[in-house]
Amino acid sequence: DLIPNILPGDHISHFDLNKLASTPMAVYNKEKVLILSPMSKFLNQYWANLLKLTYPRELIELGFIVPRNSDGDKVLNFLEVAIKQVQTGPKEKRFSKITILRQDNDSIRSQKEKDRHALSIQKERRSSMALARNSLLFTTLSPFTSWVLWLDADIVESPTTLIQDLIAHDKPVISANCYQRFFDDSKKKESIRPYDFNNWVESEEGLKIASNMRDDEIIVEGYANIATYRPLMAHFYDANGDVNTEMQLDGIGGAAVLVKADVHRDGAMFPPFPFYHLIETEGFAKMTKRLGYEVFGLPNYLVYHYNE
Amino acid sequence: DLIPNILPGDHISHFDLNKLASTPMAVYNKEKVLILSPMSKFLNQYWANLLKLTYPRELIELGFIVPRNSDGDKVLNFLEVAIKQVQTGPKEKRFSKITILRQDNDSIRSQKEKDRHALSIQKERRSSMALARNSLLFTTLSPFTSWVLWLDADIVESPTTLIQDLIAHDKPVISANCYQRFFDDSKKKESIRPYDFNNWVESEEGLKIASNMRDDEIIVEGYANIATYRPLMAHFYDANGDVNTEMQLDGIGGAAVLVKADVHRDGAMFPPFPFYHLIETEGFAKMTKRLGYEVFGLPNYLVYHYNE
Ligand SMILES: Nc1nc2c(ncn2[C@@H]2O[C@H](COP(=O)(O)OP(=O)(O)O)[C@@H](O)[C@H]2O)c(=O)[nH]1
Ligand SMILES: Nc1nc2c(ncn2[C@@H]2O[C@H](COP(=O)(O)OP(=O)(O)O)[C@@H](O)[C@H]2O)c(=O)[nH]1
Ligand SMILES: [Mn+2]
Ligand SMILES: [Mn+2]
Repeated sequence: DLIPNILPGDHISHFDLNKLASTPMAVYNKEKVLILSPMSKFLNQYWANLLKLTYPRELIELGFIVPRNSDGDKVLNFLEVAIKQVQTGPKEKRFSKITILRQDNDSIRSQKEKDRHALSIQKERRSSMALARNSLLFTTLSPFTSWVLWLDADIVESPTTLIQDLIAHDKPVISANCYQRFFDDSKKKESIRPYDFNNWVESEEGLKIASNMRDDEIIVEGYANIATYRPLMAHFYDANGDVNTEMQLDGIGGAAVLVKADVHRDGAMFPPFPFYHLIETEGFAKMTKRLGYEVFGLPNYLVYHYNE
Repeated sequence: DLIPNILPGDHISHFDLNKLASTPMAVYNKEKVLILSPMSKFLNQYWANLLKLTYPRELIELGFIVPRNSDGDKVLNFLEVAIKQVQTGPKEKRFSKITILRQDNDSIRSQKEKDRHALSIQKERRSSMALARNSLLFTTLSPFTSWVLWLDADIVESPTTLIQDLIAHDKPVISANCYQRFFDDSKKKESIRPYDFNNWVESEEGLKIASNMRDDEIIVEGYANIATYRPLMAHFYDANGDVNTEMQLDGIGGAAVLVKADVHRDGAMFPPFPFYHLIETEGFAKMTKRLGYEVFGLPNYLVYHYNE
């Protein structure tokens, strides 16, 4: 009565979605995790950090999507070498499946209905990222995936227990706080600073701005020209605080986000068009809430973005 | 340089989405078609009609989702017998893959944010159908799917060339006209009548009604209490007209709809929440348009709904 129940020889797979758990007992239950990374640059530190994660590899599937340009070509070459090394190594250290997608020609560019001039560069970039994330998601999610970890390819450092730690909170969607290491010239020492400002709580001001916008306008958090006064999770980090502190969020970034697969299966995707004046990961958070789920962030749980 | 390019032994699959065609030369190009049917009742006539379709079976994958109740149990039993017969028969007559999903407990019922009382029965039913369609779509679409045919499980008659015929129009989304056979008592003979009223063109009146609605209200076409005066494709059928006549649509039903897989991959799903005051298949049409694609219907191309 377990899933998948595959009738031998005749290619039928049965999946009972109700028996598919996403629980804090994930390792014990052998719950499968799909790690998805859009990747325009292959960073050794990202790969090294990925390999240090301690969730059992036989329960992990990986999915990558690379742009179709010379950057993408380079990524493919690095990725293949790196993957070959792991997947030809000891059986118990191999990932259960790896999918690499080459992005489609940016279909949004060839679309009829779009309003080129209304799109700021930022809007185009985010919209194109949303299309890439959707392609990756729609083609790699399987009936037996329990969790999806969105992990940007420029996240170069995280706790080795990242997956288990996020799973332990047992939330529909939960986002880590994304910081960056840098050398503080004034203090002459290594330090850290906030990096991702897309994890935020909605504000009165934000709602007011949205209500006065035309339908196809968007707010992109982290740009000074729109003062939303939204509380940003990046600023809630407390070095002495409990690492498990949770806060409810209304917008999220894509740096390191764990999603119960059922949330995606219900239809949560990354809107490439303005959805309540939000797109991509921020629009995803809004859509998740429209589906009736709650979205959380961990202000004191840090992952680190690459610093070039 | 073709897809999929699978490195042997190490579980990497490469897919170049740009080389994945969805063209009128589908059979020649060996383009893969995914047929998706939500199914609360197993009808022999549906199955017989499915088996009569002439698109090559080795290029067809099937996906079903059944409710988790006694109706669903019955469907599963019938479906397994029917499938076993085909898949243990001659190799060249087998479908390339079959997935059966058992629906999750209706998660929308256990959701916090929903407004129970604002939901009419129709809204709940359509919303629950949307969740079922999304689960089916998100878990069966693969990187090598070119086309998705949504075919309701109570469509009991269609041309045997249904897939090729719809493909020939080379549209992002195209919907057949869904009629029903019945015995006309007044004329004492077999006749046909329109069945699906969800294929429609937006009207001034429809837009006006929507603009005066609260955010969470929906218009469901085909109910007399809201007079939208939307032109319905069901009424455009002309028995003597060209079967290839196309018309642009703004809302569609789910009876028999062919979708280029890229449209879904870009993010087009079935909104279980009001999206521009539309849900499920009607919301899907709107979302498709927001993604920059056009939606079409074939008023003179008929498929037939079961008549109990
Ligand atoms: N497939 C794909 N991935 C991209 C593209 N641009 C950026 N990425 C990846 O998407 C993630 C986020 O992009 P990035 O530019 O770093 O965004 P930021 O850090 O939020 O400014 C990173 O993992 C990038 O490697 C693109 O055009 N295509
Ligand atoms: N999985 C699933 N399928 C359903 C459910 N209700 C209806 N269906 C199927 O969904 C399709 C459309 O549903 P139906 O009730 O016939 O809608 P109508 O013909 O538009 O009134 C048919 O293929 C049904 O067999 C349900 O609760 N779960
Ligand atoms: Mn980045
Ligand atoms: Mn029906």
